[in-house]
Amino acid sequence: MPRIFSGIQPSGELHIGNWLGAVRNWVNLQYDFESFYSIVDLHAVTTGATDPGHLAQQTMDMAIGLLSAGIDPEKATLFVQSHVPAHSELMWLLNAVTPVGDLERMTQYKDKSRGLKSIPAGLLNYPILQAADILLYRADTVPVGEDQFQHLELAREIARRWNQRFGGGEAFFPEPVARKTEAVRVMGLDGKGKMSKSQGNTVGLLDSPDDIWHKLRPAMTDPARKTRKDPGDPDVCNIFALHGHFSSADTCGMVAEQCRTAGWGCLDCKRVLADNISERFAPMREQAQELKADPQRVTDLLARGAEHAAAIANETLDGVQACMGLLPPLVVSSTA
Amino acid sequence: MPRIFSGIQPSGELHIGNWLGAVRNWVNLQYDFESFYSIVDLHAVTTGATDPGHLAQQTMDMAIGLLSAGIDPEKATLFVQSHVPAHSELMWLLNAVTPVGDLERMTQYKDKSRGLKSIPAGLLNYPILQAADILLYRADTVPVGEDQFQHLELAREIARRWNQRFGGGEAFFPEPVARKTEAVRVMGLDGKGKMSKSQGNTVGLLDSPDDIWHKLRPAMTDPARKTRKDPGDPDVCNIFALHGHFSSADTCGMVAEQCRTAGWGCLDCKRVLADNISERFAPMREQAQELKADPQRVTDLLARGAEHAAAIANETLDGVQACMGLLPPLVVSSTA
Repeated sequence: MPRIFSGIQPSGELHIGNWLGAVRNWVNLQYDFESFYSIVDLHAVTTGATDPGHLAQQTMDMAIGLLSAGIDPEKATLFVQSHVPAHSELMWLLNAVTPVGDLERMTQYKDKSRGLKSIPAGLLNYPILQAADILLYRADTVPVGEDQFQHLELAREIARRWNQRFGGGEAFFPEPVARKTEAVRVMGLDGKGKMSKSQGNTVGLLDSPDDIWHKLRPAMTDPARKTRKDPGDPDVCNIFALHGHFSSADTCGMVAEQCRTAGWGCLDCKRVLADNISERFAPMREQAQELKADPQRVTDLLARGAEHAAAIANETLDGVQACMGLLPPLVVSSTA
Repeated sequence: MPRIFSGIQPSGELHIGNWLGAVRNWVNLQYDFESFYSIVDLHAVTTGATDPGHLAQQTMDMAIGLLSAGIDPEKATLFVQSHVPAHSELMWLLNAVTPVGDLERMTQYKDKSRGLKSIPAGLLNYPILQAADILLYRADTVPVGEDQFQHLELAREIARRWNQRFGGGEAFFPEPVARKTEAVRVMGLDGKGKMSKSQGNTVGLLDSPDDIWHKLRPAMTDPARKTRKDPGDPDVCNIFALHGHFSSADTCGMVAEQCRTAGWGCLDCKRVLADNISERFAPMREQAQELKADPQRVTDLLARGAEHAAAIANETLDGVQACMGLLPPLVVSSTA
């Protein structure tokens, strides 16, 4: 069975942007691939995006979100990145074949470092750890969004260089292939960019029906529709785009019609969307309640996931260390 | 007891430059400090200086050299860097507080990357791993040569920044202080620069008396002394400088006199030096023979060293991870 690896930041809340863009795809892929899904806390801490006081809880919440969304620990390996030391170990070893110039050329690095007084090395080195994440499981396939294509291309280049220099002509590391996920770019409720926890413009997968409504109510719609009586243009409305994901074709048709004729106000339209989102995720909210009531079960699942991931990862790492010539560590003999 | 950490590259041969510049000092320090001495193979592989086919043997040879030179595994903790995963793990975490600009400013980075078509990231990130090496043992003191002062200053800066951002006002990491070793810069036998394995201008600590003589014979002396009859100037002669380390004051006085008066030729002078070097290291050669005959003993000692180092290192790492907010890994409960 071919292998995939994918990671998600421990942002706490799993929101509908994550779900539409990645996680529902992960759920489908776990049946056809040997799947490794990691909550990448090592990435989070080094780019400065996290508050140390909340990270552990956010990691737990993300695990609960993923399990509730349908990641099945019997099918996929779900684990926390920092629980598998081999990620950092391989990252260091890949330093040997990663050109500084390639790191400096990454668009995401240029975007994120622009204007910073002091750029943390974690921002520059981020793609080396990402390459290690993937190569550690010798994944054939990586489901990624468009914003990660350049990093994946670098991971492929790192694999090629390592194979050439240390692999003795063998393809020790397969070059991982992007599995482009259906292009879903979910706009935030503020209409100002991608839906993102840090922007506070999300709807959470596990939000209560009331919370969903309270978040949708003030959301941006067609900015040209200023009063209740103005007709709107569904094609420029983010709420209508969300209907496309959560409402039936019939409902979408009716919503568009009511918008164009000013038959409904925006609140009417949002009410229907809120109900449909709420209904779609009802079973996940229920599952999450069970998991939240039994955190020991979640930590056990994560520990089992890390144990299995580490077994595969350490096998790869042993091979890498041997090819690079490192003296193998030896268990103390009992007679010594 | 205060702690020290110091590292040496697994270059295979321990030569008199290493010994005079660092290792004899390590031997002395092990009685007054809780000492961690590491053969830093992770540094070696990522700067491209090593041949994968020889690295493991060079690591073993370096271990044998250090043990023979007097590092006592009952006093000091001697271990191979790659056997303690926490080095790479802490390295990654310190990425969060290491500015890219500081790495780019390091003199050694500028020297080593100059003229390279492609600069491996390992060359840039080297000082982060070096900081991790030291901070992992919360060492108070680091015996370093002048060429490492700048890296140690960066390690101090990294410690300060980490303490400030994640340490909650506590000095979790002490700022390690340089213990300047007696300024010994041993010139290579070719007179062209520092004695270094990669330059092939060394005398090995464990070389046989014959080998010592064959290496010293063609060595550079006072370049102005062209013929046997020309008087020489001991003050510009590298062989005379070596007499200063291996010959008695009386012998040094006589050698200088014979040189200035052309009483001795250079070969006469080298013969005396060869004998004195050979005699000084006779007990070490003997010790090395015993260890070479029993490699299992060496690997056991290294395994014990790594085990002890890892216990201390993991304690630090646990603290670092907790302060940075990472979810602690949990052992699978037996009832799950």
